Amino acid sequence: MNLPQVARLMAGFATFFTLAQLPPLLMALWEEPTGTVDSRAGILASMVVGALVTTLLFLGGRRAKGQIYRKEAIAIAGLSWFLASMLGAIPFQWSGLLRDPIDAVFETASGLTTCGATVLGSGPNCAIVDTPASLLLWRAMTQWIGGIGIVLVFVSLLPAMGVTAKNLLASESVGVGTDSYQPRAVAKARTIASIYVVLTLACTLLLILIGGYSLLDALCHAFTAMATGGYSTRASVAEFHSLGGEIVLVVFMFLAGCSFALMAANWRAGWRALPRFARSGEFRVYLIVTVGVVAAIMISLVRAGQPIGTALRQALFNGVSVLTSTGYATADFHAWPAMATVVLFCAMFVGGCSGSTAGGIKQVRLLVVMKLLAYSIRHFVRPKSVERIKLDNEVLPAAVISSVLAVVLLWFVCVVFGGILATFDERMNFVSALSASASMMGSCGPALTLVEPASVSAAILEGATATTLANTPNVGPMGGYGDLRGWTKLVFTFQMVLGRLELLTLLALFTPSFWRR
Amino acid sequence: MNLPQVARLMAGFATFFTLAQLPPLLMALWEEPTGTVDSRAGILASMVVGALVTTLLFLGGRRAKGQIYRKEAIAIAGLSWFLASMLGAIPFQWSGLLRDPIDAVFETASGLTTCGATVLGSGPNCAIVDTPASLLLWRAMTQWIGGIGIVLVFVSLLPAMGVTAKNLLASESVGVGTDSYQPRAVAKARTIASIYVVLTLACTLLLILIGGYSLLDALCHAFTAMATGGYSTRASVAEFHSLGGEIVLVVFMFLAGCSFALMAANWRAGWRALPRFARSGEFRVYLIVTVGVVAAIMISLVRAGQPIGTALRQALFNGVSVLTSTGYATADFHAWPAMATVVLFCAMFVGGCSGSTAGGIKQVRLLVVMKLLAYSIRHFVRPKSVERIKLDNEVLPAAVISSVLAVVLLWFVCVVFGGILATFDERMNFVSALSASASMMGSCGPALTLVEPASVSAAILEGATATTLANTPNVGPMGGYGDLRGWTKLVFTFQMVLGRLELLTLLALFTPSFWRR
Repeated sequence: MNLPQVARLMAGFATFFTLAQLPPLLMALWEEPTGTVDSRAGILASMVVGALVTTLLFLGGRRAKGQIYRKEAIAIAGLSWFLASMLGAIPFQWSGLLRDPIDAVFETASGLTTCGATVLGSGPNCAIVDTPASLLLWRAMTQWIGGIGIVLVFVSLLPAMGVTAKNLLASESVGVGTDSYQPRAVAKARTIASIYVVLTLACTLLLILIGGYSLLDALCHAFTAMATGGYSTRASVAEFHSLGGEIVLVVFMFLAGCSFALMAANWRAGWRALPRFARSGEFRVYLIVTVGVVAAIMISLVRAGQPIGTALRQALFNGVSVLTSTGYATADFHAWPAMATVVLFCAMFVGGCSGSTAGGIKQVRLLVVMKLLAYSIRHFVRPKSVERIKLDNEVLPAAVISSVLAVVLLWFVCVVFGGILATFDERMNFVSALSASASMMGSCGPALTLVEPASVSAAILEGATATTLANTPNVGPMGGYGDLRGWTKLVFTFQMVLGRLELLTLLALFTPSFWRR
Repeated sequence: MNLPQVARLMAGFATFFTLAQLPPLLMALWEEPTGTVDSRAGILASMVVGALVTTLLFLGGRRAKGQIYRKEAIAIAGLSWFLASMLGAIPFQWSGLLRDPIDAVFETASGLTTCGATVLGSGPNCAIVDTPASLLLWRAMTQWIGGIGIVLVFVSLLPAMGVTAKNLLASESVGVGTDSYQPRAVAKARTIASIYVVLTLACTLLLILIGGYSLLDALCHAFTAMATGGYSTRASVAEFHSLGGEIVLVVFMFLAGCSFALMAANWRAGWRALPRFARSGEFRVYLIVTVGVVAAIMISLVRAGQPIGTALRQALFNGVSVLTSTGYATADFHAWPAMATVVLFCAMFVGGCSGSTAGGIKQVRLLVVMKLLAYSIRHFVRPKSVERIKLDNEVLPAAVISSVLAVVLLWFVCVVFGGILATFDERMNFVSALSASASMMGSCGPALTLVEPASVSAAILEGATATTLANTPNVGPMGGYGDLRGWTKLVFTFQMVLGRLELLTLLALFTPSFWRR
């Protein structure tokens, strides 16, 4: 492990991250100070600490030499997320908005991983409406930074991890299994960053023009939609009462769930690139799954008695939001029928395309799994037939397939394990624990359900009223994570980063052999 | 496909299955006739139809010649389960016990697959206490026949499917990938059948001596414990109020969840075989998982305020029952805390050892998955290291690993798909639909939860009482599947057979290429 090089590059990241707090700082200086929350002090404190950390890292990395290999890249990706979660939490904590440091770290990690689970408005914390605009901007910016961050990590680091890059970047030959940092990836990263900025600006503009949002609201929502993060400036996007705004957000959430690598490769082709998108197996699956999820929710809502128009609007917005792991909501899923909630629960696992800002297992892995399943049945029928599993006309090597399957299965294991840990808080119930765990792993944000059936039926039999059930933490889209115990929030924070870094990157940091020379 | 040979062998099976109804018939002749249920007519009708079918199959197979290959074996396994589900349902339907033919087929398929989900005592059907003893005996016998059936299928057929046999039967060299029926497997099958009979007799005796059961109760419970089926002669095993009986059942459920192939290989060694069991990787995992599941449930129950003794008794009996996919219950899981129910839900997936009567994904596949996950993390850290995944000191070929993973993932897909189909019945909720689907796939029987949180909280707010919530079907251990809609029962029936035949055997029958020459 070339630690000085790691320190040098992290110093660069820390500089960028500290300077990124300038816009919120300017806003804080301009806005009316509120009584309890001192946003100026919070952001200033964070920038001072950031400057200190940057200096220390520069000192640590001043004698850096030698190449950056795979291990260093993994370490930088994993450690940057942790460093940023700490630095980015200072404005929330120091300003007095989130007095509990765990809450502040949870909120920041949730932002940086583009998860979007919030502690605001639940527990002892003040509601989103009472949060100063400067801190709302910073909160949205953490997602925007995290969103582009994960795409760049994907383009520069994950090619070494197998299937994702293998197919989507094959034409650019960033290469699979090569062990050194690729200079060509830098050029690609620039294109991707430009696309990200252009789309964000387009989204802001459309939200103002079509949605009727204010500049701050539009900017924050553009940040969090492109990051598939889901932090809003209100308790719910529904509060804007703007159908146009919801449609704009659906379009940009869907775009943000597409592979940025694929967009970058076809950027100059403009509209002529559309057939190339359609030829990408992953994009086709993404489209089919999106339509399937929205249709299933809509059918379920119509069967439950909603008018078709409302059902379509709700299914489209909330379905795309959960599938792309954004986590905006215009409806409380608790009131939805079981079919819609089961479909949403599954969508939390799937997520968007690889190389997008979306979380989850990713569509390409779903595609590989489906291909393997079809192959297994065919192979069982005719064991002697010789056949290879292909993706976009390229044969998938056995090692790539098994690494994909390992990630998928490890994902399930992590969701179940996190769910069991969450049930140590006896107020959590079956659905809320498992869905919150899946939501954290998939960077989605909101989870399902709030009352435990058993306790409720027992409570009814004992003559309880709705009020006595209210101390169950509501981790649904209209609730928040502020009521949870401290250690549950820490488990969830770890899961967010775990899911965001596609498991192995983070788990690798915890193996002793990783740190050996 | 050598159809005459398939017909000839199925004729043999039909003969056996028809003659197996003699003991219940004798009992029916001896017992007092009840007003509404005519058990004699039911069993006689079934035997007549069975004789007819047998004759037809014999005629179809009279010119049978040529070898039996893998395809024929698959077809026999799949078709036998369907034939037996139809024939075995006649006593229940014709006697008037289960007037709805779908209910009768569900109950029989649930017996033959050793699932143990029952429609008795729910819906329009009479309770278990009002069922004639002869039909209770036949009901328990369907499980006993199904239990030995699946073990024999495993020993004679599944070796061709990969890992299970590869390791557990490796010393006997039944062989992997060979395509012809193995005569040596016949000798092994005889040993296994003897062990099955001896253990059943031992269980019966111990249930009478230690548990204080009557002969019929003891015999029926021995049948269903050894089959890990779970049909009881009462609404719940708790009604016997016999700690001794529960301990005997726990021991025999655990034994039935062990590999019969492993037992047969070490049968003559007696107690000296114990170290060999401990050397089997699958057995070790089975032991660890059993202890883990029981401990987790116990901790959860103690935290919820139960005394340690009661918690241990309930955790041990119900934990082992669900893990081995038996499905007896001495407690209503609804009243249990979330941690216990999440653990039970996971246990439904896992099941017992391969080559046991237990259902589920099987411990050996869990072991392979865990090994692959550990390997993937190590490989991610050091991509150039050369390492093979081993099981019981033998290297697992890549093809075996990917077939194991395919079955595991296909299992999840089937559970989710079945769960979504189940939610088309709008009275089902998130937990009951998913857990019932998992329970069917894993041959467990009972599922979790009965009231939908959302509807409950809405209902409370509207001032509803517990009575108004009672029309939600209770598929928990103290309920039954009789309230479900007809097509839900058919979906669940299909899932039982699917899970019991380890997915591929049944799915193969639905591919066109299987039936091509």
